[in-house]
Amino acid sequence: MSFEVDFEPLGQRVSCKSGDNLLDAAQRAGIMLNAICGGEGVCGRCVVRVMAGKVSSPNIAEEEEMGKEQLDAGWRLACQTEVEGNVQIYIPPSSLATAQRTQTEGQGLPVEPQPAVRAFDVEQHPPSIHDLRSDASRLRDALDMPALTFPTAVLRTLSTDLRDREFRSAVFVSGSSVVGVASADARPLGLAVDLGTTKLAAYLVDLAGGETLAKAGAMNPQIAFGEDVMARIGHAISKPDGAEQLRIAVVEALNGLARDLCEQTAHPVHHIADAVIVGNTAMHHLFLGLPVRQLGLAPYVAAESAALDVQAHDVGLDFAPGANVHLLPNIAGFVGADHVAMLLASGMPEHEGIVLGMDIGTNTEISLIAKGKHFACSTASGPAFEGAHIRHGMRAAPGAIEKVLIRDDEIMLQTIDDKPPVGLCGSGILDLVAQLRKANIIDRRGALDKSGDNPRIRQGDKGLEYVVVPAAEDEGREITFNRKDVNEIQLAKGAMRAGVQILLQRAGITEEDIDTVIVAGAFGTYLDVQSGITIGMFPQIEARKFVQVGNAAGAGACMALLSTAIRKQAADVAHHVTYVELTAEKGFSSLFARNLFFDQHIADGL
Amino acid sequence: MSFEVDFEPLGQRVSCKSGDNLLDAAQRAGIMLNAICGGEGVCGRCVVRVMAGKVSSPNIAEEEEMGKEQLDAGWRLACQTEVEGNVQIYIPPSSLATAQRTQTEGQGLPVEPQPAVRAFDVEQHPPSIHDLRSDASRLRDALDMPALTFPTAVLRTLSTDLRDREFRSAVFVSGSSVVGVASADARPLGLAVDLGTTKLAAYLVDLAGGETLAKAGAMNPQIAFGEDVMARIGHAISKPDGAEQLRIAVVEALNGLARDLCEQTAHPVHHIADAVIVGNTAMHHLFLGLPVRQLGLAPYVAAESAALDVQAHDVGLDFAPGANVHLLPNIAGFVGADHVAMLLASGMPEHEGIVLGMDIGTNTEISLIAKGKHFACSTASGPAFEGAHIRHGMRAAPGAIEKVLIRDDEIMLQTIDDKPPVGLCGSGILDLVAQLRKANIIDRRGALDKSGDNPRIRQGDKGLEYVVVPAAEDEGREITFNRKDVNEIQLAKGAMRAGVQILLQRAGITEEDIDTVIVAGAFGTYLDVQSGITIGMFPQIEARKFVQVGNAAGAGACMALLSTAIRKQAADVAHHVTYVELTAEKGFSSLFARNLFFDQHIADGL
Repeated sequence: MSFEVDFEPLGQRVSCKSGDNLLDAAQRAGIMLNAICGGEGVCGRCVVRVMAGKVSSPNIAEEEEMGKEQLDAGWRLACQTEVEGNVQIYIPPSSLATAQRTQTEGQGLPVEPQPAVRAFDVEQHPPSIHDLRSDASRLRDALDMPALTFPTAVLRTLSTDLRDREFRSAVFVSGSSVVGVASADARPLGLAVDLGTTKLAAYLVDLAGGETLAKAGAMNPQIAFGEDVMARIGHAISKPDGAEQLRIAVVEALNGLARDLCEQTAHPVHHIADAVIVGNTAMHHLFLGLPVRQLGLAPYVAAESAALDVQAHDVGLDFAPGANVHLLPNIAGFVGADHVAMLLASGMPEHEGIVLGMDIGTNTEISLIAKGKHFACSTASGPAFEGAHIRHGMRAAPGAIEKVLIRDDEIMLQTIDDKPPVGLCGSGILDLVAQLRKANIIDRRGALDKSGDNPRIRQGDKGLEYVVVPAAEDEGREITFNRKDVNEIQLAKGAMRAGVQILLQRAGITEEDIDTVIVAGAFGTYLDVQSGITIGMFPQIEARKFVQVGNAAGAGACMALLSTAIRKQAADVAHHVTYVELTAEKGFSSLFARNLFFDQHIADGL
Repeated sequence: MSFEVDFEPLGQRVSCKSGDNLLDAAQRAGIMLNAICGGEGVCGRCVVRVMAGKVSSPNIAEEEEMGKEQLDAGWRLACQTEVEGNVQIYIPPSSLATAQRTQTEGQGLPVEPQPAVRAFDVEQHPPSIHDLRSDASRLRDALDMPALTFPTAVLRTLSTDLRDREFRSAVFVSGSSVVGVASADARPLGLAVDLGTTKLAAYLVDLAGGETLAKAGAMNPQIAFGEDVMARIGHAISKPDGAEQLRIAVVEALNGLARDLCEQTAHPVHHIADAVIVGNTAMHHLFLGLPVRQLGLAPYVAAESAALDVQAHDVGLDFAPGANVHLLPNIAGFVGADHVAMLLASGMPEHEGIVLGMDIGTNTEISLIAKGKHFACSTASGPAFEGAHIRHGMRAAPGAIEKVLIRDDEIMLQTIDDKPPVGLCGSGILDLVAQLRKANIIDRRGALDKSGDNPRIRQGDKGLEYVVVPAAEDEGREITFNRKDVNEIQLAKGAMRAGVQILLQRAGITEEDIDTVIVAGAFGTYLDVQSGITIGMFPQIEARKFVQVGNAAGAGACMALLSTAIRKQAADVAHHVTYVELTAEKGFSSLFARNLFFDQHIADGL
């Protein structure tokens, strides 16, 4: 028996058999729904609304996740709902894995292109009985480069590549090594990648000209195996093929991004002749298939911290056959190449005065440069600001609440693209907590205060909750914020602030001495600095000292992609950092505990 | 239903199900029978004798291959014979793939060890909360080599390797790259391989001391896909996975040889830190997975002819994780690195006077150095001298006839290990043809002469044949030699001699000008030079001018393994060769045709 499923508001239709679930049906229709749990019914991300038609009855997983009221209104988990007739399905923006606000924008410093790969146009006579030189030797002679070497992967297609193009071709060369053979006049491309714990950002760059031709973001598919680095390391060392699963997941995602970017710009993917990848130490190791057991246990030691050059082919990336992948150096612990890239892009090491840098993500890396010394640490801030672990949290997609203002009983919301609100993204969550605290709706411990008569505070199924958006017939789901949500933010901000304080102690200075705070990361682009100060996530200094630089790690990766000189500079920067392992710092636990409270002066502009 | 199969004289027993064939049964018992055709019943190599018990009746393939008489005597093809009860099977030595005379002996010049890999013993404190350097950086510091790099494959096991050995270990280093981490005091080993079309020879060498610790030979398993290079190239380009099948077959065989040699000498296989592999251009390309289409068509152009360094790990060899494999340069056409190695080992380029070198195998490579010029060619001499394509040919295993002398009606035979004769190996075949010709039993065209009343000449099922060993009740099979067998030798010797004559023409000299002839190759070790002169395979000059150097290609590979200076010298030698493509030489076909005849003066010592 075959049925039609209509997906609205996208207008996609797909045929289904009886018993197919809506998640699979959507995938077949080319619609990617959020499904962090892989369709197990536990992440509650693939919420859809059945507008018409017959589907299976709600199961226990759905009752647990959604509650009776939502289910009665037709809201369901797509992964748990089976088609039993022709149906019409509404997909709220919060359930879509696509269409999120790009996390690829970042400010970098201008770079004079000095790429590793150059292209040479070569026109040769074909071999003949009077010219029996090998294909490689003929190229050496044509380019007048007697020391030119050919990696095995290049040799494996060289003879075909030359003959297919009738011996007129562009040869990509890096140093004295051939990267690939392309059509005559082809320009070598580069791919820069910020390999984040939660998100991937990729940039396709014209190596000779220096322009970024296209950029794209995607979720890190390793999320299915664990949300944070420790969970992934746990998966890698506890499952027989765990490390390989993680490696393959991210390699396939990078190949997918590369293909998408090349399709968008009408370039063949084998024109990618060079790549730079940055990530924290765990992402770096998992991508390369390096051991992570010793990284997951104290004293958290990396296998390698120096910059690495690997063959794209050897790590499973389908670029030009001899393409190199440069991995910027890691610093130590989890402070990896992504932080080095952020330092490069922000120009922090050249800043005048005392400068603090925070790259906020699932892990937050912090650098403090003061009086010629550079201290850095990493702190597990968790994915709360990515919208995860927050009941009605979501990523920054249309309809996400990104700004919040509370005046007495009134709450004002701004959503992305001015769409009806469907959830809270990171900057909205931060604003909400700051506003709740300023309005004394939550106390210094983070508890919702029911002593007043705020009509938005009510008893929910999981304790007290604040109603951000009430349920309304046409306008999507009700949005609430509860004690547990507040607690996630307390953990995140407590860890970040304690990290900053430890570095200040090491440098022998105080918050007041800081001249500049550089805030990086996708969330860092959009957050309200004042809200961050209000909840005590940031140092208690004037908001005007903060600079938001966006995805600086991605920007730094692009700089290193364009210039071998920048790669050398990166090694210097990494070399001069004093790494501080927070778990080894005596004062850290108590600083962390103290920073869980909301003890800041609750006043605008301090 | 389960039966017992006894294999004699080896005394191996194995359980079989009804319908299992004897070839599979032997394999399960650990006995490798010859089966070039892969068990298709067409190569006639897996002959066994059923001594007792019930087996399937002979099929058409067997009747064609064996004849009624042999079948009646219990001789069968193992691959076609199914077990139907408890049976006792006799395996003649000629059917065994093992136990053949080693093809690994060869003379090389003495070499001062100057290996690429050195070992450093390192003892480190384990990392601690006060020493958070990465494992790689800690090794760089311990060795005081700040520029030391670690290939990805090394990094993948580095952290475990160091911890398993509690940070006391030997570190193998090549140039500025780490090859592997081994137990403290471990000595780095090297593997030299002569990758022949028919045979593989491998040598395990102590890199620091220079001694060959063990050596082993094996058949090239690619034989199952084609006997000569053209058949293999055909397989590689006509079958979808053909090239990959060939590549994997030889890689697995090399891994097997490495394991065997290491087991024999009680070394772990990951102590192999460096390798040198030589082979003709086709073997070289197929081993690396390089394209061979352009090599199989005129003008027969290699993808690469320069020396190559590849990571063992990348080509599937299970040595130390960062072990390098050095492939000596190819010359051109099919004249490959094995010939360069033979030139190194024989010292030909430094010889005084005019010197001719012939490395005899399925392909025969020929070099002529005269008046400061070096010419080389390759000629398809075929596998007849390996015992293939000869009805009762076999490899040089116990019982193989290796010397033949005919006096009137009397024939005198010498077999390997003085075992009862079971077949003819290369040197025996050469002697036999020379003696038949001298006795005028074959004429200048190669036809058997029945005009006399030689009782050994008779009408066989495939024309006239000469009975070398008559059938006898207890003593194995009858051994005969027929017109077709003679023809195989005519083709081989005609090709070799014509190749030599072309090179002499190019150098503007004649056979009489040659001062020295170096004869290399396994067959070349054992052949009777006078027989070679008699049949016109060799130049018609005095036998004392010939030097037999054995497997010089293997010896040259060992020299290059021990010394990076020799590798440079190899590149120089290859660079100075003028390659002569015989198929492009106008005179070649007629010279080849003329040399098919036996026109030499038939006299001892000329």
